[in-house]
Amino acid sequence: MKLHGIIGYPVTPFSDDNTINIPVLKQMLDLLIENGCDAIAPLGSTGESAYLEWDEWCLVAKTSIESINKRLPVIIGISELTTDQAIKKAQVAQSYGADALMIIPVSYWKLTDQEIFEYYQAIAQATTLPIMIYNNPATSGVDMSPELIVRMFNNIANITMVKESSGDIQRMHKIQELSKGELPFYNGCNPLALEALCAGASGWCTAAPNLLGQRPQQLIEYVKNSDLSQAQKSFYQQLPLLRFIVNGGLPKTIKAGLELKGVSAGSPRKPLSKATNTELNHLKQLLSEIEN
Amino acid sequence: MKLHGIIGYPVTPFSDDNTINIPVLKQMLDLLIENGCDAIAPLGSTGESAYLEWDEWCLVAKTSIESINKRLPVIIGISELTTDQAIKKAQVAQSYGADALMIIPVSYWKLTDQEIFEYYQAIAQATTLPIMIYNNPATSGVDMSPELIVRMFNNIANITMVKESSGDIQRMHKIQELSKGELPFYNGCNPLALEALCAGASGWCTAAPNLLGQRPQQLIEYVKNSDLSQAQKSFYQQLPLLRFIVNGGLPKTIKAGLELKGVSAGSPRKPLSKATNTELNHLKQLLSEIEN
Amino acid sequence: MKLHGIIGYPVTPFSDDNTINIPVLKQMLDLLIENGCDAIAPLGSTGESAYLEWDEWCLVAKTSIESINKRLPVIIGISELTTDQAIKKAQVAQSYGADALMIIPVSYWKLTDQEIFEYYQAIAQATTLPIMIYNNPATSGVDMSPELIVRMFNNIANITMVKESSGDIQRMHKIQELSKGELPFYNGCNPLALEALCAGASGWCTAAPNLLGQRPQQLIEYVKNSDLSQAQKSFYQQLPLLRFIVNGGLPKTIKAGLELKGVSAGSPRKPLSKATNTELNHLKQLLSEIEN
Amino acid sequence: MKLHGIIGYPVTPFSDDNTINIPVLKQMLDLLIENGCDAIAPLGSTGESAYLEWDEWCLVAKTSIESINKRLPVIIGISELTTDQAIKKAQVAQSYGADALMIIPVSYWKLTDQEIFEYYQAIAQATTLPIMIYNNPATSGVDMSPELIVRMFNNIANITMVKESSGDIQRMHKIQELSKGELPFYNGCNPLALEALCAGASGWCTAAPNLLGQRPQQLIEYVKNSDLSQAQKSFYQQLPLLRFIVNGGLPKTIKAGLELKGVSAGSPRKPLSKATNTELNHLKQLLSEIEN
Repeated sequence: MKLHGIIGYPVTPFSDDNTINIPVLKQMLDLLIENGCDAIAPLGSTGESAYLEWDEWCLVAKTSIESINKRLPVIIGISELTTDQAIKKAQVAQSYGADALMIIPVSYWKLTDQEIFEYYQAIAQATTLPIMIYNNPATSGVDMSPELIVRMFNNIANITMVKESSGDIQRMHKIQELSKGELPFYNGCNPLALEALCAGASGWCTAAPNLLGQRPQQLIEYVKNSDLSQAQKSFYQQLPLLRFIVNGGLPKTIKAGLELKGVSAGSPRKPLSKATNTELNHLKQLLSEIEN
Repeated sequence: MKLHGIIGYPVTPFSDDNTINIPVLKQMLDLLIENGCDAIAPLGSTGESAYLEWDEWCLVAKTSIESINKRLPVIIGISELTTDQAIKKAQVAQSYGADALMIIPVSYWKLTDQEIFEYYQAIAQATTLPIMIYNNPATSGVDMSPELIVRMFNNIANITMVKESSGDIQRMHKIQELSKGELPFYNGCNPLALEALCAGASGWCTAAPNLLGQRPQQLIEYVKNSDLSQAQKSFYQQLPLLRFIVNGGLPKTIKAGLELKGVSAGSPRKPLSKATNTELNHLKQLLSEIEN
Repeated sequence: MKLHGIIGYPVTPFSDDNTINIPVLKQMLDLLIENGCDAIAPLGSTGESAYLEWDEWCLVAKTSIESINKRLPVIIGISELTTDQAIKKAQVAQSYGADALMIIPVSYWKLTDQEIFEYYQAIAQATTLPIMIYNNPATSGVDMSPELIVRMFNNIANITMVKESSGDIQRMHKIQELSKGELPFYNGCNPLALEALCAGASGWCTAAPNLLGQRPQQLIEYVKNSDLSQAQKSFYQQLPLLRFIVNGGLPKTIKAGLELKGVSAGSPRKPLSKATNTELNHLKQLLSEIEN
Repeated sequence: MKLHGIIGYPVTPFSDDNTINIPVLKQMLDLLIENGCDAIAPLGSTGESAYLEWDEWCLVAKTSIESINKRLPVIIGISELTTDQAIKKAQVAQSYGADALMIIPVSYWKLTDQEIFEYYQAIAQATTLPIMIYNNPATSGVDMSPELIVRMFNNIANITMVKESSGDIQRMHKIQELSKGELPFYNGCNPLALEALCAGASGWCTAAPNLLGQRPQQLIEYVKNSDLSQAQKSFYQQLPLLRFIVNGGLPKTIKAGLELKGVSAGSPRKPLSKATNTELNHLKQLLSEIEN
């Protein structure tokens, strides 16, 4: 499985009693599908994967896979401190029918390259699903070099994709070179979308379609058709919002934007807080500028 | 409760089947007490607090408190991503008879100062135990400024101490100034021990007594007696080992050192790996240089 | 004057006695013109501007302007610690017939935004030439934010262009947005060329044509014609060399490459050293891979 | 020559016409001597060494040496981009009768360790004066590791001292260890003075005596006498001012403080600006708090 295009990231909606809001979860997944996503990735950073209890994580994974019901490929996100917990989640996700796994090693004590290699290797050996390496040092505290990523791609059979969220376009260049173009990379840094696609990214992993509808997909189409002028125009139009949702933290800002659109996805889990009124107003203005 | 002196950090020993090794845990606690510690802090960074399952964490907390049996004050470490889990652990620790809590907010999405404030406030309101703020950005991904720390000390009743592990002595100066000397600070960066004590630290939070016996305590005594010449000599003697255990990661290096001393504390939990033979030999040499 | 395309950067060639090598300087300028540059910028970072004595700097400026003889616009580079010296050079360059100035404020004591503003303002008032702001924190120690750059563009009449060399594509986005597309920006970070052009850069300031001939110009043409596939191919072909010349320091690596091509541009000025044999061999290989 | 104690740094005073103010320079040197300095270092970072024209630099060096007239050792500061200019200044300083040189390699293009080694070696071979390596990455853009510093000490005959201004106490530990205590190190980071002295620094290089009179010397005495309690008290009393003069830039803040004391040292050289009224008032308050 090699994915292309927009991989859409839902939030994990909570009810007022802080439990998973299943009806809203299903509603959001439908919305992402309607907005032209090419795959769906529940339980990513946007989905507060790391903040959920075991049962909650399983519930979201299971519900998402069943609700998407093979309309699109489903990539389940795993962010665990210990190898054993990550393996358990990989096996559970596979048992539910996931199409792929997106795995980010989070750290407390710094990991050596060899420890990271063995972490991915152990998980890969416990599942037959394709695995997307997810590099996001700002959240996970683990920074995987292009050299390490390509080494794992070359040596671990079911590692087949990488989501690069460090925001450094040079990393993508290096992955492209070191793997001789064989390892598909996906942009995970929203304000870098135009350049990542121009540099050859296979797709864009993003929560933006929750708020921007089909616009992220349009940007991809413009680049695919080599219409650079329209791509620039589309990108700069979306950019203020892309920057806002990243800077404010995706769970908070996407949930705030959904609320503005009438979808009750609740607050992020504490200690994360919901958007202030000032932030809500700023977001409202950004959305209205794009829609005009 | 205002602590002074050496706060000793045990590792969490594992058996070959990856379960908690209770007899070795008790043995190590006795060892720390014999080596002159002034308090014991189970379930810190050294104790792999963040890597334990809920039941394991409870078992270590309960066993430690019972085994120490009021010979010394016991400070239980909590490092949780969500406020709710941290509160639960605070309440459990209190129910077991802990004397104090050491709390570090770990992050996935970056926290604002206000979110950190509310995190500590919510935990503090759920317990009557004194709380030590623990700042260690390298492991937790959260960096609390002296300004924020002193603001929490001034506004949250049971926050009474701070362990500063950023390695920046200027932070300690600032805490001293901003709190007008009222907030006791403890050194959490081993290779900074001499200077932190000279700058007025109330104590030194360290796993070093596991390997260095009474030497850390002696350093404190020299500083307390204003014997700077002996303090320098003692510090520079310990420094290569202090640097080694920090650079290699405390769970790995302390467990390796214990093994060299005949205590079977097992390996750290994966993805953390145990010391290589090269590291073991280096450690052996460092220990023998100090002991001569 | 608003420039487009490739702005070529010559090195400053030295003879064996460490004086300026005038014949080689002229030869190199002709070479850059033949290779399709749209403008020439003597005395940039590549030209070791900051390392020259006053008389040497004047000699290179005068010789270059006369030798180019209006075949292309000439942008003279100025990198001075004090405002007074920068003003003197601006006036000298204008008296020689320069078409524009590229100015980078170097620092010893950190400059505030207001100090930088006044530095540019004072120089701008002393000349009628258009000025290109040059932001290159890695060499100059001064990092000018997009906000400051656009503020100077809006408030200082003859500031009309900016060369961004921080390597952060987000800076270019921000300049584009803050100036509403009015302030033309030029890419100064060679390994970012593809993305900067795709993001709307007006040109590429580069020493690469010294070694790569017309290839940088071709990349620009592909982007201009929205031929993204050919642009990617061209860029990835040039990238290993672009990275090499930046990582090794442009004066050293460009002079080494010129030597390989039979042009005796001498060594960089000490303490900068010339390329080692290992570096020369690596460069030779990179060049041969591109030419095949 | 191995120095101990306070090495005092004068500013370079300017008259209203931006020329060196010789009478005030002499007055300031006398003031530093009266305040108990153990050596004087004209033309350091505080002395705006890097901002002076060749003739000005010579004038300040010559005047200072003559005016001090062997009352104290004189260390002349050199901060030059090229090896040749640094050599010329070293020779001029020796011809004037300097006792030692303090040399900092400033950078535009990043220097390799080998380039830095050869820079110092070339200068050392051109003089018989003892040389103090000066490491201050924040101003010079060159960061010399303890390993490099000790290697130069071991291999270049007249390198005999190091001033460490990186602000990282671990560097001092490392220098102490690597040189087995043979290379005397001096603290160049004012807000680190207490700890550097406790860690074994041979002295404190500082402009503080310009404003604080004999207080810095007193701190040294307390540490020398192992009176840690008085040392702490003295240090924390001086700290707010030490932090202020460093954060604001020494030329600006020391000149501002001298003006408050009735010494007309003029403004720093542009683009550096003089203190604002707000800064002056803040400084006045800090000074009055110390004097009470």
